[in-house]
Amino acid sequence: MDYEKIFKEIYVDLAKIEDTGQVSNYIPELSKVDPNSFGVQLTTIHGEKYAYGDSNVRFSIQSIAKVFSYVLAYSRIKSDLWHRVGVEPSGTAFNSLVQLENDLGIPRNPFINAGAIVICDILVSELDSPKEDMLTFVRELSGVDSINFNKRVAESERMNGFRNFALVNFMKSFGNILNDIDEVMDLYFHICSIEMSCEELSKSFLFLANNGVVPYSNNRILSPSRTKRANALMQTCGFYDEAGQFTFKVGLPGKSGIGGGIVAVHPEKYCITVWSPRLNPKGNSYKGMLFLEEFTTHTKLSIF
Amino acid sequence: MDYEKIFKEIYVDLAKIEDTGQVSNYIPELSKVDPNSFGVQLTTIHGEKYAYGDSNVRFSIQSIAKVFSYVLAYSRIKSDLWHRVGVEPSGTAFNSLVQLENDLGIPRNPFINAGAIVICDILVSELDSPKEDMLTFVRELSGVDSINFNKRVAESERMNGFRNFALVNFMKSFGNILNDIDEVMDLYFHICSIEMSCEELSKSFLFLANNGVVPYSNNRILSPSRTKRANALMQTCGFYDEAGQFTFKVGLPGKSGIGGGIVAVHPEKYCITVWSPRLNPKGNSYKGMLFLEEFTTHTKLSIF
Amino acid sequence: MDYEKIFKEIYVDLAKIEDTGQVSNYIPELSKVDPNSFGVQLTTIHGEKYAYGDSNVRFSIQSIAKVFSYVLAYSRIKSDLWHRVGVEPSGTAFNSLVQLENDLGIPRNPFINAGAIVICDILVSELDSPKEDMLTFVRELSGVDSINFNKRVAESERMNGFRNFALVNFMKSFGNILNDIDEVMDLYFHICSIEMSCEELSKSFLFLANNGVVPYSNNRILSPSRTKRANALMQTCGFYDEAGQFTFKVGLPGKSGIGGGIVAVHPEKYCITVWSPRLNPKGNSYKGMLFLEEFTTHTKLSIF
Amino acid sequence: MDYEKIFKEIYVDLAKIEDTGQVSNYIPELSKVDPNSFGVQLTTIHGEKYAYGDSNVRFSIQSIAKVFSYVLAYSRIKSDLWHRVGVEPSGTAFNSLVQLENDLGIPRNPFINAGAIVICDILVSELDSPKEDMLTFVRELSGVDSINFNKRVAESERMNGFRNFALVNFMKSFGNILNDIDEVMDLYFHICSIEMSCEELSKSFLFLANNGVVPYSNNRILSPSRTKRANALMQTCGFYDEAGQFTFKVGLPGKSGIGGGIVAVHPEKYCITVWSPRLNPKGNSYKGMLFLEEFTTHTKLSIF
Repeated sequence: MDYEKIFKEIYVDLAKIEDTGQVSNYIPELSKVDPNSFGVQLTTIHGEKYAYGDSNVRFSIQSIAKVFSYVLAYSRIKSDLWHRVGVEPSGTAFNSLVQLENDLGIPRNPFINAGAIVICDILVSELDSPKEDMLTFVRELSGVDSINFNKRVAESERMNGFRNFALVNFMKSFGNILNDIDEVMDLYFHICSIEMSCEELSKSFLFLANNGVVPYSNNRILSPSRTKRANALMQTCGFYDEAGQFTFKVGLPGKSGIGGGIVAVHPEKYCITVWSPRLNPKGNSYKGMLFLEEFTTHTKLSIF
Repeated sequence: MDYEKIFKEIYVDLAKIEDTGQVSNYIPELSKVDPNSFGVQLTTIHGEKYAYGDSNVRFSIQSIAKVFSYVLAYSRIKSDLWHRVGVEPSGTAFNSLVQLENDLGIPRNPFINAGAIVICDILVSELDSPKEDMLTFVRELSGVDSINFNKRVAESERMNGFRNFALVNFMKSFGNILNDIDEVMDLYFHICSIEMSCEELSKSFLFLANNGVVPYSNNRILSPSRTKRANALMQTCGFYDEAGQFTFKVGLPGKSGIGGGIVAVHPEKYCITVWSPRLNPKGNSYKGMLFLEEFTTHTKLSIF
Repeated sequence: MDYEKIFKEIYVDLAKIEDTGQVSNYIPELSKVDPNSFGVQLTTIHGEKYAYGDSNVRFSIQSIAKVFSYVLAYSRIKSDLWHRVGVEPSGTAFNSLVQLENDLGIPRNPFINAGAIVICDILVSELDSPKEDMLTFVRELSGVDSINFNKRVAESERMNGFRNFALVNFMKSFGNILNDIDEVMDLYFHICSIEMSCEELSKSFLFLANNGVVPYSNNRILSPSRTKRANALMQTCGFYDEAGQFTFKVGLPGKSGIGGGIVAVHPEKYCITVWSPRLNPKGNSYKGMLFLEEFTTHTKLSIF
Repeated sequence: MDYEKIFKEIYVDLAKIEDTGQVSNYIPELSKVDPNSFGVQLTTIHGEKYAYGDSNVRFSIQSIAKVFSYVLAYSRIKSDLWHRVGVEPSGTAFNSLVQLENDLGIPRNPFINAGAIVICDILVSELDSPKEDMLTFVRELSGVDSINFNKRVAESERMNGFRNFALVNFMKSFGNILNDIDEVMDLYFHICSIEMSCEELSKSFLFLANNGVVPYSNNRILSPSRTKRANALMQTCGFYDEAGQFTFKVGLPGKSGIGGGIVAVHPEKYCITVWSPRLNPKGNSYKGMLFLEEFTTHTKLSIF
């Protein structure tokens, strides 16, 4: 298929619709982005690439990084994760504490903030240099050595991350955080601050479309069974309380971030990344959601 | 693949595990079933059939019927359903009222009780003879004219359905039920009382694996796009607060009922139905869940 | 003290403040009242009476009647009420179902709708003619034989009481309603429909200020200890999620109704009733609350 | 009345009942107390004193101190407190975060942990040396200069206070904490660590029974109106989700702490303090609650 032509058509169509989204002002650093940025990149498991717009501009991947940390923990840890974090959609906002109180400190899944913090706690326990190991892992997945944390973003999140500090303290009060809070949160904020482009992201997630193997390096990251489960988890939990909408309208497993990026995976086929910084009220890219809905409608391709 | 051999192997394996599930005692009629019943049937879109055990014994399909009522409403209604019911997983039990209070009477999705009751209200508004039309629809899908309501089950549910009457009254207080409560609930309880076998169910759901067309009659039930969306909805919402687990471990869209049945759909391939009446604490078939997990593991087939 | 002078002064003061309250439109019958009605009556345990405004006009006492039904049940029942209803403030709106789900069908107290419905269920179990007995009881307390139900109001509430039907069905699903729902709700709606004037109400509640004895008839209704407990319950639970505000600002045990009436009791001293139909957002009389706050401030009298 | 005889009789009666309570193990320091300690002291506004048991032994007053901090803030602050903390009972446990999320970071009242932390934030803003000023205030109220913080207890709470750190971070994320978190919590933990005896506590609370004036020093602490309101607040909010029970059974405004102390105030009459370290499941002294219930039953005195 001529994906680039499709990208352009959808982009032109969407340009006619008012973008009612708002750039995140969660931290000052994020609000500096050009709100009209737009990029998309599709990479197939056979190495074909299709791009449009600002596909090479790096942005703050934010919560998309929760997939990397989850996969790293899932691939390295021998013991069972699942007594410390669930696999159910939360049905609530990404930073809600209500469910955590009812569930005695066990987050619903690894892709809400609380769950990602538990994953960081596990990585701190298991890895010698968790920040460096994390970076190495993402660089290997993408094949790009220049990928890095944005220290100012990480620091800005630490300074303003009261809700996240509430979550980690709350979970520690239930015994579900084992390490020092500052060390765990330092890792968490650094992971969220990673900057990547659409091109780099779509390449990095390709192993999830390829039964767990990075196509261009032949490195196995996860077993086929665990790869399917990682995709399944993105399907039900990748978009906070909009996971149902994304599944319903787009029909692919994916993950969003408040930097405006969305990555979606079509198993056995491709990985697609869209970036548009204006967010809808649920914290997902307004235009990114619409773009992917139009894309799977145009191509008549989804996993369902 | 030799599916029947796989069925037998899994069945023998599972026989070694203690079945800790309990037959539903929600209504007296349901508790009369033989708890050791077990049946499975897989039907491909090309008409191949694979069966094991009590695949021809009819049982109470209960909540599985919510897919039929949803599809009937979705296919007949010109106007928009989605201001009256959502597409998000609930994250709570099938009969919870908490979320309904927060969401001002709009159920999270059509597959929890509250959502299915709204669908019944829509059918009462749209159809001349909703009970008969519903039956006709299911008979057409299955090609079996003898499928019927179990009047004793329907009456038993009406007599004991205080929780469901709480739900419908609650929604009516928010203005989300337009018709007479008794008429809506009469339809609801009748739909839940339909009795079908694994064979009949797997045949009836086959249009969802076949882009919306019943393979053996060539009747189009839903457009390809709406078919994908119906599957997507089963994926995120088909198993109440265990939807994540089912997606994670089985990886197929599906729907369960407290009669012990589970139907799962592999788009472009097949439909499989399992029946085992003992339920886990979440109200889903204990052995049915395990069977399908083993099945997709053995066959290495899932949508992810 | 010259209470009538104080009443007038406060009334004149309050006339300067805009009354932002709204007459209840919960049922059509209630919305027909003159929104500018205002009456107040104070009766001491020694028989002195002080009145102002529409103190002799009857209005729909609505939830104020929950005190009558509670006292009737509390005085007639030998067995223990308190495994079926609590004595804690709810912290939520008068008709919330959320807490009921967490508390497995046991209402927080007898003065929220759910609790008053359980009291009605107890009265249906214990009394031969619950509606007549209830009416007899209120007539004895007030010494006024013409007090009666308003059948149109009762019928209007039955026709529109979906939220209350949700509550009673929900509690029955937990096993906390023993009798037929329609019989219980018929009693409930009739009790709420009783019409009384400020004068009649302040006289009827006087036994609560007089250690349980009706002053002018010397009939003992409750023991001194149970009288104190009834007052205590009004203090913490008489104003739904505004119980704290009323205690903080007025400092007397009391009970409000959506007809705009408020009764307050000063133990060992008097009973005061105010009526003003416009309600604040919490469902309590806007001007009635302010009036009583000013009254206990002026007189420097409260139980604290 | 011969209060000391009554104390003894009740104590002997209660000794026959098994004390099913448990000493708090919230922090190691608290668990070291002798679980069989028991003391009671009643002090009248005219200076009479009645004591029994370990009435002179100091214990950790814990949450009882929230009354001191609230009164200090209420007496010193010109501006309005009530946009930052409410006056409603919470209906939930003392350290719940659920309500805080629904109420956007505004605690229900100053006597749950979240509310007391907001009061500390106000004190940090208003006072030059908040810890010293707090201590001076309590010493003045009690007339005992040796009253002090227990630094080990304060430090132990800081080390284990993850739930409280969750609360303060959560409120700061909503903008309801203005100062540095560590400074606010340092004050909070120190206030909770104050040690006093029954005798000292009953003397210190006496101004609340005396219209706001310390009887033996004639210092006015609060206006009569504010004194009534402070008592009202203890009535509805002094015992977490057992406030209704305490009001219902004891009928006096009061405040408990997890050190096992309870202070209750009878306006115009006396202040009584009981201490017994074993706690019921709600975190209030098991024997202390029973003792006060028996006491107001014996003496037939309560505010209702």
